[in-house]
Amino acid sequence: MYKLYTTVIVCLVSLNLSGQINVPGMPEEVYHTMQSQQDAWNEGNIDKFMQGYWKSDSLLFIGGSGVNHGYNTTLQNYKKSYPNKEAMGNLTFKNRSWTPISDVSALLIGSWRISENQHGMYSLIWKRINGEWVIVADHSSD
Amino acid sequence: MYKLYTTVIVCLVSLNLSGQINVPGMPEEVYHTMQSQQDAWNEGNIDKFMQGYWKSDSLLFIGGSGVNHGYNTTLQNYKKSYPNKEAMGNLTFKNRSWTPISDVSALLIGSWRISENQHGMYSLIWKRINGEWVIVADHSSD
Repeated sequence: MYKLYTTVIVCLVSLNLSGQINVPGMPEEVYHTMQSQQDAWNEGNIDKFMQGYWKSDSLLFIGGSGVNHGYNTTLQNYKKSYPNKEAMGNLTFKNRSWTPISDVSALLIGSWRISENQHGMYSLIWKRINGEWVIVADHSSD
Repeated sequence: MYKLYTTVIVCLVSLNLSGQINVPGMPEEVYHTMQSQQDAWNEGNIDKFMQGYWKSDSLLFIGGSGVNHGYNTTLQNYKKSYPNKEAMGNLTFKNRSWTPISDVSALLIGSWRISENQHGMYSLIWKRINGEWVIVADHSSD
């Protein structure tokens, strides 16, 4: 019985530490994409992390420095802010809600944490473009 | 000629100080709503300022303190953060882009400034519900 309790507690703690990506209504594809993004970040691979974003000059990224446009600008800004694996630390996503906006778009709200010191909220607009769910707008704040 | 230059400069300065609400593609109704919101804030009237938001428990507000749900919660939070006209200061909106998400929804990106000290970005999801454009989600960051 003690062992069972210990197992349950260990599971709850690790669930909490690892965040939570899946939320009701989220398409399985989006869940897998975000899981891969989190894994890629924690491997120090920003190019692979970017796979969730729309490969377009119209991608919108709203962050501390204002608005940035485009996939390449976003990629370069990530690389500038996190130049190596050590700076990237350990990322966890913790999603809160998936709210459909239309049949092919939704708002995902969640929080991010990098190691112990950096954390904040994000709101992502996901859109199904050419049969694939991608992030078309990302507002991330501390 | 000197007078003309002066007039042009005064116009440019006042345009800059008063921000800019209208952006390409924005429905006129949204422009008027945001203009009224800005005016209401600067009259110290938070109830009137809230007119742009969806009167629903499903309204989403993402701010420094996390996610809040619902029109009433958002209204009460504004009143707690800005208890009187002096605390409210002078608000200006400066919109950057209106990006349609579907036929009846769009993402509006812009920046806000309250007097000299407080400023940040916002991304608003506007949706036409029962023939009226309302904010269904607001992510405001410093």
